[in-house]
Amino acid sequence: MAAGSRPAVTPLLKDELDIVIPTIRNLDFLEMWRPFFQPYHLIIVQDGDPSKTIKVPEGFDYELYNRNDINRILGPKASCISFKDSACRCFGYMVSKKKYVYTIDDDCFVAKDPSGKDINALEQHIKNLLSPSTPFFFNTLYDPYRDGADFVRGYPFSLRDGVPTAVSHGLWLNIPDYDAPTQLVKPLERNTRYVDAVMTIPKGTLFPMCGMNLAFDRELIGPAMYFGLMGDGQPIGRYDDMWAGWCTKVICDHLGLGIKTGLPYIWHSKASNPFVNLKKEYKGIFWQEELIPFFQQVALTKDCTTVQKCYLELSRQVKEKLGKVDDYFNKLADAMVTWIQAWDELNPAKADAAAAALANGASK
Amino acid sequence: MAAGSRPAVTPLLKDELDIVIPTIRNLDFLEMWRPFFQPYHLIIVQDGDPSKTIKVPEGFDYELYNRNDINRILGPKASCISFKDSACRCFGYMVSKKKYVYTIDDDCFVAKDPSGKDINALEQHIKNLLSPSTPFFFNTLYDPYRDGADFVRGYPFSLRDGVPTAVSHGLWLNIPDYDAPTQLVKPLERNTRYVDAVMTIPKGTLFPMCGMNLAFDRELIGPAMYFGLMGDGQPIGRYDDMWAGWCTKVICDHLGLGIKTGLPYIWHSKASNPFVNLKKEYKGIFWQEELIPFFQQVALTKDCTTVQKCYLELSRQVKEKLGKVDDYFNKLADAMVTWIQAWDELNPAKADAAAAALANGASK
Repeated sequence: MAAGSRPAVTPLLKDELDIVIPTIRNLDFLEMWRPFFQPYHLIIVQDGDPSKTIKVPEGFDYELYNRNDINRILGPKASCISFKDSACRCFGYMVSKKKYVYTIDDDCFVAKDPSGKDINALEQHIKNLLSPSTPFFFNTLYDPYRDGADFVRGYPFSLRDGVPTAVSHGLWLNIPDYDAPTQLVKPLERNTRYVDAVMTIPKGTLFPMCGMNLAFDRELIGPAMYFGLMGDGQPIGRYDDMWAGWCTKVICDHLGLGIKTGLPYIWHSKASNPFVNLKKEYKGIFWQEELIPFFQQVALTKDCTTVQKCYLELSRQVKEKLGKVDDYFNKLADAMVTWIQAWDELNPAKADAAAAALANGASK
Repeated sequence: MAAGSRPAVTPLLKDELDIVIPTIRNLDFLEMWRPFFQPYHLIIVQDGDPSKTIKVPEGFDYELYNRNDINRILGPKASCISFKDSACRCFGYMVSKKKYVYTIDDDCFVAKDPSGKDINALEQHIKNLLSPSTPFFFNTLYDPYRDGADFVRGYPFSLRDGVPTAVSHGLWLNIPDYDAPTQLVKPLERNTRYVDAVMTIPKGTLFPMCGMNLAFDRELIGPAMYFGLMGDGQPIGRYDDMWAGWCTKVICDHLGLGIKTGLPYIWHSKASNPFVNLKKEYKGIFWQEELIPFFQQVALTKDCTTVQKCYLELSRQVKEKLGKVDDYFNKLADAMVTWIQAWDELNPAKADAAAAALANGASK
């Protein structure tokens, strides 16, 4: 069962995974990732001025989309893709033709484990995705499917098969992913603690999903990975991944899918400007106090049997319950619908496969 | 806020914590713990033949209770305390007059951290208990109150005060706490992974609580720490701590208290006999398939405002819902009531303090 025991002669899932990178600059950071990323296909989503040329180091296999491409491919539906915000990355999830996606920020470097060895983050994400999750009961020795671990005494045997893993959420050494107020209060804080664990986030528990170092199974959960309306023309930023995480968690819980967090670490090289961040975030800091209770209480009906159906139902409830918090959520709810329409347009064949995979997952 | 920053000149909580040890043999293992345990008071609960003398190394401050003492002190209510099973340890919780209890098995030795330093398990438990828990939302960087950690972006500010921590569940290096089937299948497996993390078990999630290396706040949760009817004359063993854990978790969730798991590690020196364990456990392996759904669904009413009231309500529901699984649960439900009666008899003054502390905790 442990994926960890396989010798990695051919890189795992070489032809089944795309790496999605949103960027506004030359991708020199890929040099450091070359040993790990070069076998894979990259989807680069260029943010900001489309006339600018993004340089990609030699030898990488990639496709690149700028704003003109997004507008051309999606037409009026391009309105659901954020501009001047890394939330635009979700366009890459939509155009990918692979089963798995890994997304990483361009200020994330290769981290070292406590022995000083370079961490192959992608390989660990793949291990996380290929082994089951255990959302229904907590295992005190963390991921029971890792080498040297198992389910402890008192863990019900009927739950030991686990459920399919839809998301693998990786962490960050060096600059922690803090909000602007915490950045301002603790400018020198660095994350130096390497926690050698992977765990399933229990059913019914929400978490703050960070998009810096994230992998997921597109077929199982892709249509829920919408990064919302952020940046240019929007009243909020830096909540793109949070929004996707709350929606994704609620839908995974409903469909019987798992989300893992923990390993792998990347090295987050530089802190974003806390003053700029505060401006982007401050409405979110108020709004999240109402969003969290909404997502904690939201219930999806039995006929929500696919991610698409779940997501459309969620958009309906967002409009109904959050529209009164701010008109922004009415716009966001509409954009959620547009996103699903665009997803289904670009992924016509996949719709049936996804439904089948989910029926399988949900029956556990 | 971080307890970790205090210099430990005087041992933390020296006069507010008892160490409870159930045993059938001489306590030579205390030699190894001398630097850490000697300042504290020990409560030794002698299991089995009361005519046997248990030797305690010189210099420790202790009280020792054997079966004759238990019968004398509790009279007919002694029936709720197990015999020939380490579940008898909960008698020590009842006679303690301190705010905190740490309990440890006598085959648990001092473990070393990755730098080779002896781990002061008790000190870490105290840090866990003295810092809040965060059961309502998952923090991906683990315990936000540890040095060098905090709440990550997207964590609601209204939840950053946390709630009082009632239980600190420590782990084990070397021999993992496996059930008999897993022991039989993996006789050579050892836990060598030191995971440098403490985390709150989310609200609504059950976990397998192991009694080997466990600390708790008696005033907040003591009356729920009943280790049930095990061993001599009972159809089951090795579910004492599990039972206490399920009851405790449900009550903590209801009262707004937290349970942490992770650090500290102890070194679990020897595996118990898997054949003997299988005999003790096999009914539990069936029963837990019905117990877990019961505890997942159990609801306590608003008038359950103290641990005692919660526990009595739980015993009522155990009888009503689990009595049909096996008549054993009718006996256990009665013993739960006897336990509370005995607890209140031995802790008359504490009852009010506990109610006050809880009202405080529940109001968060």
